Amino acid sequence: MSKPDFDRLALIGIGLIGSSIALAARKTGAAGHIAIHSRTAETLERAEELGLGDSYHADAADTVRDADCVILCVPVGVSGNVAEAVAPALKPGCIVSDVGSVKASVVAQMTPHLPESVHFIPAHPVAGTEYSGPDAGFAELFENRWCILTPPGDAGPDALARLTAFWQRLGANVETMNAEHHDLVLAITSHVPHLIAYNIVGTAADLETVTQSEVMKYSAGGFRDFTRIAASDPTMWRDVFLHNRQAVLEMLARFSEDISALQRLIRYGDGDKLIELFSRTRAIRKGIIEAGQETDAADFGRPHGKHDDDSD
Amino acid sequence: MSKPDFDRLALIGIGLIGSSIALAARKTGAAGHIAIHSRTAETLERAEELGLGDSYHADAADTVRDADCVILCVPVGVSGNVAEAVAPALKPGCIVSDVGSVKASVVAQMTPHLPESVHFIPAHPVAGTEYSGPDAGFAELFENRWCILTPPGDAGPDALARLTAFWQRLGANVETMNAEHHDLVLAITSHVPHLIAYNIVGTAADLETVTQSEVMKYSAGGFRDFTRIAASDPTMWRDVFLHNRQAVLEMLARFSEDISALQRLIRYGDGDKLIELFSRTRAIRKGIIEAGQETDAADFGRPHGKHDDDSD
Repeated sequence: MSKPDFDRLALIGIGLIGSSIALAARKTGAAGHIAIHSRTAETLERAEELGLGDSYHADAADTVRDADCVILCVPVGVSGNVAEAVAPALKPGCIVSDVGSVKASVVAQMTPHLPESVHFIPAHPVAGTEYSGPDAGFAELFENRWCILTPPGDAGPDALARLTAFWQRLGANVETMNAEHHDLVLAITSHVPHLIAYNIVGTAADLETVTQSEVMKYSAGGFRDFTRIAASDPTMWRDVFLHNRQAVLEMLARFSEDISALQRLIRYGDGDKLIELFSRTRAIRKGIIEAGQETDAADFGRPHGKHDDDSD
Repeated sequence: MSKPDFDRLALIGIGLIGSSIALAARKTGAAGHIAIHSRTAETLERAEELGLGDSYHADAADTVRDADCVILCVPVGVSGNVAEAVAPALKPGCIVSDVGSVKASVVAQMTPHLPESVHFIPAHPVAGTEYSGPDAGFAELFENRWCILTPPGDAGPDALARLTAFWQRLGANVETMNAEHHDLVLAITSHVPHLIAYNIVGTAADLETVTQSEVMKYSAGGFRDFTRIAASDPTMWRDVFLHNRQAVLEMLARFSEDISALQRLIRYGDGDKLIELFSRTRAIRKGIIEAGQETDAADFGRPHGKHDDDSD
C-alpha cells in the first residue's frame, strides 16, 4: 500500500460519517495513526470496541495534537465551539476540515478561532444513509459519491491538493466551489428534500381520518420512500435548517409556489399540462443514473418477494 | 399444483401490473388460460414475445368471452370506456375487477355499463415500481404487499372469497374497505407523495441559480430518492390526480399548512420544536419495517461502492 496521505488523522466526532472515514482511511491506507474523539463517553467507548481508530480521546484538544489533518464530523451547529476548543493544540501547517452539510455558516463559525498557521479547507461528502452513530459507518460510503471542497481564497494549493488526494483515495469524486453556492445547491438537492420528507410523515401522523396503522400498511404506494430520509438524525438536521436558513427558505418558497400551481391544475382538471410536467422528470432520473449517482434497478433494488419475508 | 382459482383469466391492459399478474398467476397456477388485450398493437406483440399469456386479442370484447375473471389493468381514466366495450361479451357469473389506484371514480365509471349478471369487485394492489410496460412485470411484485378490495354492498360473498383467494395466491395480503375510505388512505400514502415528488423534481429543473448538471451530481443528498417515484407513468398519474381530486386536494392542503408551520419554525429559529418534529418520524418508519412493508437495510439496500461502478 502506498504512503498515507496523512501520517496522523484526527476525527472529532465518530457518527455515520466519522466512522465511515475511519474505516475507509484504514482500508485504503490513506491515514497512518487515526485519533478519535467523541464528547459522549458511550460513543467513544463503542468506537474503541469497534476498533475504528488507533487512539481514543475524551478531550478534543488532545486528539488533534500532532495531527496532519483534523476533520470535524459533528453537527454544524457546534463547529465554532469545537474549533475554539481544538485551536490551541493544532500543529502549525496542519489541515483543518469538516464534513458539514452547510458551508458558509461553518466558515463563519470556525474561521475566527483558527490560527493563521493552519490550512482551513471546509468539505462536504455528499453521502449518507438514514442510520446514525459509530455502528452505522462502512468503508464504501464515499465510493463514487461527490465530495465538495469550498477552499477560501487564501487556501494553500498544496494543502488543497493533499485533501483532494485523501478524498479521492476514499473513493470520492472531488469538486470545488464557493461556500455560498454550495449552500444553494445543497438546499435543493438535499435540505428541502429532507424537509418535505419530515413534513409529509408528520402530516400523515396527524390525520384524524386515516389511522397510523393504515399509513404503515399501505405505505408501499410511495409514502415509505419518504420515511427513509425522515429517519435521519434530528440534531444534525435541525442544525442544517437553522444554519442554511436563507437558502432553504428561498428554495422552499419556490417549491410551495410550484405546488400551488400544480394544485390549481388538478382543481381545474388540466390533464395536458399535468402530463407535460410529469413527463420531463424521467429525463432527470435518467441523467442521475448516467452520472453514476443512482442505481437503475427497479425500486432502488429493494428486495421483493421472498426476501421481504426473510427480513421480517 | 392445486386447481386454478380461475379457469380463464382475462387481462385488459398489460403494463407493469397486468404483466406482473400474468407472471404471478402462471407461476402459482392461479389461472388456467390467460387471455391478454392491449389497445396498442406494439404492446400486445411484445406481450406475446414475452410469452405472458395463452391468447392475445386486439379486441377487448374478444378477450373477456368465457372468462371467469376479467381484470382491467388500465389507467383509471379509461375504466368506463373499457367497461362499456367489454360488457356485451361478459359471461354471466364472471368476476369483473380492476387494479386502479382510485376506487370511487372507477366504481362510478364502470357500474352503469356492467350487466347485473356479473360480480363487480374493484381491487387495488398497493405495489409497483417506477418502470412501466409489459417488460417491467415480475411474478414477485405482490408478495407481502396489500391488495385492497372495495366490494359494493351487493357483492356476492362467493365471488369475494374467490377474488380474495386469487390475490392471496399471488402472494398478497387482502383487506376490504369502502371505496371512499380507500381514496382517502391512498391520497396520503401514495398520491400526495407522488405529487410532491413530481413537484420538487420540477422545481429543481427550473432553477436559474443551480444547473441541472449540479442537481444530478449532488442528488445523493436526498433528491434522487424523489426522482424514482417521479419517473412513474405520466398518464396513469394524471388520471389518479384528476379522478381522486377531492381527497388529493384535501391532503395536499394539510401538507401545505404543515410546511408553512415548519417554514416559520426555521425562520424564527425554533430548534427545540424542530427536534421534536424530526424525532417522531423514526417511529413511523420502524412501524413500516415491522409491518413487513419496508426493508431495514441502510439506504433501501441500494448498492454502495463497487456495485455502483459495475452498473455504470
